[in-house]
Amino acid sequence: MHDRELDAIFRPRSIAVIGASTKKHTIGREILHSIIDFEFNGKVFPVNPKAPVIHSIKAYSTILDVPDAVDLAIIIVPRDHVKRVVEQCGDKGVKGLVIITAGFKETGPAGAKLEQEILEVARSYGMRMIGPNCFGVLNTEPNVQMDTTFSKVRSLPGRIGFVSQSGALGQVIIEYARNLGLGFSMFASVGNKADISGNDLLRYWQDDPSVELILLYLENFGDPRTFTQIARQVTKKKPIICVKSGRTTPGARAVSSHTGALANLDVGVDALFDQCGVLRVDSIEEMFDLALALSSQPIPKNNKVAIITNAGGPAILATDACVNWGLEVPRLKETTKRFLRQHLPEQASVENPIDLIASAGPEGYSLALEAVMKDDSIGSVLAIFVPPVMIDPKAIIDVIVEVRKRYEKTLLTCFMGPAEVIHGSEGLLQNRIPMYIFPEAAAKALADMVKYRRWVEKKPGKTGKYPGDRLKVSDIIEKSLESGKTRLVGEEALELFGAYRIPIAAYALATKQAEAVTRAEKLGYPLVMKINKPEVLHKTDIGGVIVDIRNAKEVKTAYGKLIKSLSRGKKKQRVTEVLLQQMLRGGVETVFGMTQDPSFGPLMMFGLGGIYVEVMKDVSFKIHPLTDKDAEEMIQSVRGYPLLTGFRGSKPVDMEILKEILLRLSQLVGDFPEIEEFDINPFFAAPERAQCKAVDARIILKSPK
Amino acid sequence: MHDRELDAIFRPRSIAVIGASTKKHTIGREILHSIIDFEFNGKVFPVNPKAPVIHSIKAYSTILDVPDAVDLAIIIVPRDHVKRVVEQCGDKGVKGLVIITAGFKETGPAGAKLEQEILEVARSYGMRMIGPNCFGVLNTEPNVQMDTTFSKVRSLPGRIGFVSQSGALGQVIIEYARNLGLGFSMFASVGNKADISGNDLLRYWQDDPSVELILLYLENFGDPRTFTQIARQVTKKKPIICVKSGRTTPGARAVSSHTGALANLDVGVDALFDQCGVLRVDSIEEMFDLALALSSQPIPKNNKVAIITNAGGPAILATDACVNWGLEVPRLKETTKRFLRQHLPEQASVENPIDLIASAGPEGYSLALEAVMKDDSIGSVLAIFVPPVMIDPKAIIDVIVEVRKRYEKTLLTCFMGPAEVIHGSEGLLQNRIPMYIFPEAAAKALADMVKYRRWVEKKPGKTGKYPGDRLKVSDIIEKSLESGKTRLVGEEALELFGAYRIPIAAYALATKQAEAVTRAEKLGYPLVMKINKPEVLHKTDIGGVIVDIRNAKEVKTAYGKLIKSLSRGKKKQRVTEVLLQQMLRGGVETVFGMTQDPSFGPLMMFGLGGIYVEVMKDVSFKIHPLTDKDAEEMIQSVRGYPLLTGFRGSKPVDMEILKEILLRLSQLVGDFPEIEEFDINPFFAAPERAQCKAVDARIILKSPK
Repeated sequence: MHDRELDAIFRPRSIAVIGASTKKHTIGREILHSIIDFEFNGKVFPVNPKAPVIHSIKAYSTILDVPDAVDLAIIIVPRDHVKRVVEQCGDKGVKGLVIITAGFKETGPAGAKLEQEILEVARSYGMRMIGPNCFGVLNTEPNVQMDTTFSKVRSLPGRIGFVSQSGALGQVIIEYARNLGLGFSMFASVGNKADISGNDLLRYWQDDPSVELILLYLENFGDPRTFTQIARQVTKKKPIICVKSGRTTPGARAVSSHTGALANLDVGVDALFDQCGVLRVDSIEEMFDLALALSSQPIPKNNKVAIITNAGGPAILATDACVNWGLEVPRLKETTKRFLRQHLPEQASVENPIDLIASAGPEGYSLALEAVMKDDSIGSVLAIFVPPVMIDPKAIIDVIVEVRKRYEKTLLTCFMGPAEVIHGSEGLLQNRIPMYIFPEAAAKALADMVKYRRWVEKKPGKTGKYPGDRLKVSDIIEKSLESGKTRLVGEEALELFGAYRIPIAAYALATKQAEAVTRAEKLGYPLVMKINKPEVLHKTDIGGVIVDIRNAKEVKTAYGKLIKSLSRGKKKQRVTEVLLQQMLRGGVETVFGMTQDPSFGPLMMFGLGGIYVEVMKDVSFKIHPLTDKDAEEMIQSVRGYPLLTGFRGSKPVDMEILKEILLRLSQLVGDFPEIEEFDINPFFAAPERAQCKAVDARIILKSPK
Repeated sequence: MHDRELDAIFRPRSIAVIGASTKKHTIGREILHSIIDFEFNGKVFPVNPKAPVIHSIKAYSTILDVPDAVDLAIIIVPRDHVKRVVEQCGDKGVKGLVIITAGFKETGPAGAKLEQEILEVARSYGMRMIGPNCFGVLNTEPNVQMDTTFSKVRSLPGRIGFVSQSGALGQVIIEYARNLGLGFSMFASVGNKADISGNDLLRYWQDDPSVELILLYLENFGDPRTFTQIARQVTKKKPIICVKSGRTTPGARAVSSHTGALANLDVGVDALFDQCGVLRVDSIEEMFDLALALSSQPIPKNNKVAIITNAGGPAILATDACVNWGLEVPRLKETTKRFLRQHLPEQASVENPIDLIASAGPEGYSLALEAVMKDDSIGSVLAIFVPPVMIDPKAIIDVIVEVRKRYEKTLLTCFMGPAEVIHGSEGLLQNRIPMYIFPEAAAKALADMVKYRRWVEKKPGKTGKYPGDRLKVSDIIEKSLESGKTRLVGEEALELFGAYRIPIAAYALATKQAEAVTRAEKLGYPLVMKINKPEVLHKTDIGGVIVDIRNAKEVKTAYGKLIKSLSRGKKKQRVTEVLLQQMLRGGVETVFGMTQDPSFGPLMMFGLGGIYVEVMKDVSFKIHPLTDKDAEEMIQSVRGYPLLTGFRGSKPVDMEILKEILLRLSQLVGDFPEIEEFDINPFFAAPERAQCKAVDARIILKSPK
């Protein structure tokens, strides 16, 4: 795919508005008006079979009647005419389409079919297409100046690229941004994403100097794997902020593993964003709080914030919020404090927050700002001002603007009170200094900026090759599916994992008492004996597990107990086979797992086993495939991690093997898409590698249909 | 204390402004101006030794020169004159004081001393006093109309009482509220709270019909016990919303117990608010989002929300936020759906959220609103509107206002886009229908309203009497402190708890091998043997604990091992005594504790023991004293609670005894303020009451100074 293809849509030299209308307050009229009103730098041709003139411009019956070449067609005709119009566009040699018309995939199968047909027509002519069911696109570059949306408000020029999956929110956001003094470089409402999706736009903007910051409003991911790939690259160059909604949409999938039950739908989204450096925010408001900072300020070099204020209350709120978001409000350097002490009035506090007290005028702010700008231990500055009776906010703003010009350090401000009370606060925004009404918003923005710095500086992880016995695994899976079995439990599952060199506790099966003894002697003691019935999920609960068997006599007793006491009832439920297994001790029980996210594919899980996973749900997820860094982070991010590093004098477990197992499992999942879900639970993690072994496991295969 | 005393401050018939000034933009001028500008219903007398006229009003040299009686004096004179002026006020027979002047306790010991002297003068004359170092008070009741603040903006009349510990924030909040159409009934900036604190105002407003909702901005609690008592009563009648800042102020206290280490400073505040029904919010913004709803809408009767929208995106954001805050967005009743299906256009969705699609006009909104207002399964309604090109927001607003008049159900609205785009959104606020820019804010407000309903409906818990052997405990504490010992560990601590009928595992001490055997035989097997050295906190870590001792021979071996192997090194470190203790099995380890919060006093703790408390920090806190309901909630709110209710086929533990122990400990803490902190860790919780016993404990006593 050539990125420049999208130039036909975002940088056209001529536009046809097909379905332009003479009637005010219709979309067909408003879009034409937007194009003219925004002073598009190319030619615009209204197309309407009935009207010869629209908005003082000569109109044409069909696109084919337009005398000049047309790069981009905006289509607003009724749904059932869209396909024919797209064909005409193809015949005319149009290169890009923006289909505003709704009534396609979002309305059901018939609409989806029509949408697909239109897409095929567009593709057959080599046309790229935005929509259908969208709000339009815009580009504020001076040599383009195109607004094909039906927004009532024009975007300011700027360096933000913005993709919205919701037309309504797109409109809201353009208006909201304008009020904050934020401008967009390009905007696209992608609607049903039949052809062009957010991924295409990320690719298009990746190296485009006119876009320095990307905002996304997403409701779902069409192709999350591609998204991850592209986003990972883009975020190393420019930040992406995303509101991903639909967090709580109830999922309809049935889960039959622990891992599946633990992975709520949003775990995948968080893991994905985390793994590709996208800054996820919780609301549109937060998106703008952050965009305001990222679009104008350098990324803080560390998480240390200096707060300057003229009132105690707001500074306390700011400190609380900073610390809450993982920032530090550290002591200032002694030299800084000494300087402040010398120059500020006696009642001022030269600790951090620096409280200039209510009488502080421009000189006080200037001094304090200079001091923290020069203090190289400080990464960013938050200047708070609450206008007292005697101080003119304008003078404070002027000082802030002046000092900011001389120092390259992240500076946010909080001017408290409604905008109309803070005279001249636009002076800050005009000088690209973010101004917030409440200190909490500023603190959150700073914290996200610091998070972004960590991402940019993070070295990429490696995936590596961890091949296993593919043939053997293929064989197990094939045989299972042939016999109509999609669940592998106990020794069947362990065998499969063993083939990918996951160490497993030695085991043997027995259907007779004598056989049990022979097998036991061969395995060695101590042993565990379990009933071998896949249907029984929690064998312990029904007394189906006997532990710490130490000799042949105990094997016999245990065998008798399991077979006899549990073999009552219907024939089907009878226990006829036991599993003998090496008993492991002294380690920490862990659990490995994988489940499928409906949009992200395999989600890998690691956690502490037993009660930790079942009651405390102490697990971590990442999206497949895993790098070595991913594996490390997964292990370190469980709350019970201290149990693995040697708790209360016990030896630390072998972390390397845990990481290696995650990477081996990642390889297995990549090699065998037939595997739907699995748990290895427990996996005994011990200080010595040779003692680290999987004890039980379960695999669910995809039903072949 | 008689509540009506505060009438002198909030409902005076005459005010003197002592320190009134002729100079504009000074506090002395602005306060006098506020009083006049707001058209105070009584008389105002400027007092200034130099100016005969201020703001066109005759001024007096001193308060003593004022010819009429004066109820309230606002004092703005320089700090060093305040005391004299207060004396004069007393002589004049003034009843209430508002001291604006700063420079007292907030500046250090000298200021604190002066403040105390002034307070004593005021008290000696029976005057009540607000401040010093405050921003003033106001009362918007039509028969009072008093604004003694130096705010540039006047408050709207309303039914909100507001106490602010920060003058600057008070000002910000009055202005912010005005912009939202929210009015205050009374406001007080309490400054240094020398006399009148938030508690006094809560008491004053408790039964005052002019206050229906109370807002607090607090930085610390002067007297949290009184606060709890009063707030508990007030919140049953009217909601209190509080921003408590200073969450992260680093605490300087040293902690020497688990409980202490686990209780960060904010745990106490959260527990306190929870126990007295105060709605804690995270920011000023959130305070207003909630105040907007609580001041105009009925409390929802349940947590079920119906969402009506004309655009998908915002409805998804709203649903996410609702579910995230514990609300439900349930299916609508079949009859409701059928009705909607009949009347709404085909493309509309009649599921919840009801999506009327972009073409929806007033009829659509009217229909949908009526339908969900009538649906008695629904507790509240959130109507979202994003203005499309063809629809006039005004018409939608009119419909919402009209429907609202006919139904008594909680209704919030979200009109997306900046205020100036939503023409006429004031129409909503004027009709007391809350309007939010973003759906997340509306969802959070709804969730807090539902939380408030739960509080109001909650039956109060009982404390009860759980007396113990006070004499014995007194004796232990006295002896300890006499010998300069403030730490009781192991058997010393257990003995103390035993005296308050906390069941403890039987134990005995031994300093000789033979003695150990005798004691062991008497205790019965199995046994645990531990070194008895208080200094060693984690005995297991150094091999100082031997478990599962089953006979006399094993007692001997164990004794030898502990004494010999651990008795190397310096004399001081030698082990000379062992503790033998009944070994408990099959239960769940829990932990009970208490620590002192610097402002709230004793914080009681419950949690799961062992690794759960140490690694997972799975504990819950409540403020002393505990009711039976508190105890129940503490136990139920730990994450590992399922382990207590019978996990994986094991029997549930005896919950009653756990509750009883919390109440007994609460009694002990109340009876003995000498106890600074304690842990009972572990306490074995077992299915049978007789098996539930404390195994180890630690008590820290307050150092007598």
